[in-house]
Amino acid sequence: MIKGKVAELLVSTQYLQEVQVKGWVRSFRSNRFIALNDGSTINNLQCVIDFEKTPEDLLKRITVGAAIKVTGTLHESLGSGQKVEIQATSVEILGDADPEEVKLTILSPKRHSLEKLREQAHLRVRTNTFGAVMRVRSKLSYAVHSYFQQNNFHYVNTPIITGSDAEGAGEMFKVTSFDLKDVPKNEDGSVNYKEDFFGKETNLTVSGQLEGETYALGLGQIYTFGPTFRAENSNTSRHLAEFWMIEPEVAFCDLDGNMDLAEEFIKYVLKYVLDNCKDDLAFLEERLVGEDKSKPESERSPMTLIDKLRFVVDNNFKRVSYTEAIEILKNSKPNKKKKFNYIIEDWGADLQSEHERYLVEKHFKCPVILFDYPADIKAFYMRLNEDGKTVRAMDILFPGIGEIVGGSQREERLDVLKKKMAELGIDEEELWWYLDTRKFGTCVHSGFGLGFERLVQFTTGMSNIRDVIAFPRTPLNAEF
Amino acid sequence: MIKGKVAELLVSTQYLQEVQVKGWVRSFRSNRFIALNDGSTINNLQCVIDFEKTPEDLLKRITVGAAIKVTGTLHESLGSGQKVEIQATSVEILGDADPEEVKLTILSPKRHSLEKLREQAHLRVRTNTFGAVMRVRSKLSYAVHSYFQQNNFHYVNTPIITGSDAEGAGEMFKVTSFDLKDVPKNEDGSVNYKEDFFGKETNLTVSGQLEGETYALGLGQIYTFGPTFRAENSNTSRHLAEFWMIEPEVAFCDLDGNMDLAEEFIKYVLKYVLDNCKDDLAFLEERLVGEDKSKPESERSPMTLIDKLRFVVDNNFKRVSYTEAIEILKNSKPNKKKKFNYIIEDWGADLQSEHERYLVEKHFKCPVILFDYPADIKAFYMRLNEDGKTVRAMDILFPGIGEIVGGSQREERLDVLKKKMAELGIDEEELWWYLDTRKFGTCVHSGFGLGFERLVQFTTGMSNIRDVIAFPRTPLNAEF
Repeated sequence: MIKGKVAELLVSTQYLQEVQVKGWVRSFRSNRFIALNDGSTINNLQCVIDFEKTPEDLLKRITVGAAIKVTGTLHESLGSGQKVEIQATSVEILGDADPEEVKLTILSPKRHSLEKLREQAHLRVRTNTFGAVMRVRSKLSYAVHSYFQQNNFHYVNTPIITGSDAEGAGEMFKVTSFDLKDVPKNEDGSVNYKEDFFGKETNLTVSGQLEGETYALGLGQIYTFGPTFRAENSNTSRHLAEFWMIEPEVAFCDLDGNMDLAEEFIKYVLKYVLDNCKDDLAFLEERLVGEDKSKPESERSPMTLIDKLRFVVDNNFKRVSYTEAIEILKNSKPNKKKKFNYIIEDWGADLQSEHERYLVEKHFKCPVILFDYPADIKAFYMRLNEDGKTVRAMDILFPGIGEIVGGSQREERLDVLKKKMAELGIDEEELWWYLDTRKFGTCVHSGFGLGFERLVQFTTGMSNIRDVIAFPRTPLNAEF
Repeated sequence: MIKGKVAELLVSTQYLQEVQVKGWVRSFRSNRFIALNDGSTINNLQCVIDFEKTPEDLLKRITVGAAIKVTGTLHESLGSGQKVEIQATSVEILGDADPEEVKLTILSPKRHSLEKLREQAHLRVRTNTFGAVMRVRSKLSYAVHSYFQQNNFHYVNTPIITGSDAEGAGEMFKVTSFDLKDVPKNEDGSVNYKEDFFGKETNLTVSGQLEGETYALGLGQIYTFGPTFRAENSNTSRHLAEFWMIEPEVAFCDLDGNMDLAEEFIKYVLKYVLDNCKDDLAFLEERLVGEDKSKPESERSPMTLIDKLRFVVDNNFKRVSYTEAIEILKNSKPNKKKKFNYIIEDWGADLQSEHERYLVEKHFKCPVILFDYPADIKAFYMRLNEDGKTVRAMDILFPGIGEIVGGSQREERLDVLKKKMAELGIDEEELWWYLDTRKFGTCVHSGFGLGFERLVQFTTGMSNIRDVIAFPRTPLNAEF
């Protein structure tokens, strides 16, 4: 007897063999046709039972959500939409699902809103949409590791709990073992961190970059892929308080090399899911077409999901300096007609999402890499250009998503770095170890950060970032 | 001109070709022989310079730790220990390393203690030992992902910040956005968590298992691989406050299947590093031989590092019930002679590290899987056996390490689970979502947790767990 997963049996040609499969009932029609799914694929396996030979009390327990074991023979299917089916000789109920209780959940067979599904995040992975999204997410993760490992990058786990808050990438969560009801204080009323678990103030990391740099300057080329955190009160479809970030860092690599790396990397991982997630992507594409129908035409996607992914894989990203971009924006229709919320007037302006989307979606109509930003709007560790006013930063902008990658060549010159830190009031004592890397064999090096959930959003076409991570953390929401 | 990494050039046979390589000086002998390393391998590339043609001020700057670019021709090496060398035509200093400053760091060419190296965790990856450990760690990580992905497991990122503290696996860190100097209180003096970022009390996860189960019961087979936390004041060589854990979870799988999975998985990842980290393992094996020489004979490793790894890969793990193990321990010499700190008297005793090590290292002399533990000493979610007093738990014990895996078949029966939770005072309201999985198509399922750093310890032979993670977090230590 062949014991198999649904995914395996669906492509099997071992007709007339006895098979056994376990899974959950997705639907049961006419007391005859069970659609069985076990999570191995978006597709269900049809199991046909002979209801005349099946006891009535068993038939009643074959309900949506129930776990069952089906034994039978594999047959070429005469129905449309599937190649094989099982003609069941026996069905065993492994775990019931009371239809009255199922009715109260998102497992009930009707259309539920994405908001409703979020409230039952522990069950939503049993729906077609979330099964597909989470399988694609998993494959994307593997593609990330595969790309870097095949290219001899070393994976580094930078710390999650950090005593350093110098990066200034945003508000941080505090980590403590104190009883919050009764926090130990010093005589002057300040918190006595000496009594805390780590003996100092600690936070959740916002980025592993600085630690990653210390490793790149020893191992040559490294990447991180781990959770990062922002305690920002942003209730948007693009922000999470807890998200996964990918941060490669490469010694002896300048900004051009960094752009090449980012572009090649993104193309590799998208190609990987195009090749390995065909059924899930086809489903998600269909879903998006359906979703689009309810939108005004101007907001519909100009390309289907798979075409969009192929387009990114097959085309060069457009590389444009910040200065060029400002010129394009200044002369653009929405700027002249004052349709932008923020009108671009002068060089030095920080670009808003509306500007980034104009450049990508209207002007260039392809992914864009903007580089050489004004120093004043970028972080302290980015390398100053000879012009003294721009830094070797780059952002990659994607259609529908906006910024998906932010990176830079790092300031490798100790004196320039120290001067910049002094200007911004960053304590050298705090970052003594970071400065050490510039003292002992410093070199040109570069890296970038890619928010993994934004990549999953782009790949799956899900419009809300809360729908591409298993249990999203957002302001006022840490359920499960 | 061939631009290459040290690892590539060392195996190149393109003799007499012009090559260029960048890296850091590991040593410089006789004003002639530079040992160059770029992190791509444990091995250095010898670059031979003609000091008569090299300006003196350049010679002076070729110091340990400096970053340099060497151009020259590739030659078959006449010296021992290397196949090729570069006869340099030019050396360029990319980043100096002032010898006076280097003297104060662990980069200085002498033997430093592992404790000293820990204080300079940002530099220690430039040493042979830590370069090797971190490369092996990276490859092990990839082997973990490869094993599960090749076996159609889906990677799930369970939440790091959690509102649930029901697992009771130990003390948890609190996560908050409150100003700890001034925590908002209710009228009764309790903390007003409604004002906190998530509107409730939140902690850092100790395990992704419960959330992982919800996903396994939809996707079939999943795994997590992410950071977990314990706020325990354990200053030992086996404990970290922040460590990475691997947790697979499989629907329709019982404890026997779980043991098979764990054993096959561990053998796969060890085999992978044996095949892919030969040079690093050879170095680490040598290191261990050296370390052993300073130990009394009774404490030395009975096997070399690579033999030990091969032994695990090639032999079956011994499967022994808790009840059998207790009999063996009760009748053992150290128990009879009262050499154990905890004498085993009765069935039901919790095994200590000394007992586990006796079973593995003295009695069976191979990895051991203990199963069917007394219910009273195990967690609430483990499946109760028909005897009413043992649960379907398993621990895998490794030589030198002790427990490396803890797993179980999960209690899939709603009524039994609820009864157990009531006995232990675990709030059903708190775990409503976990109980839901037992209401809607519950099924036999199993999983385990493997502490990744313990696996890295075993694989590299490092005796302190702080030496197998980039920036260890332990009580009073969150530097970097």
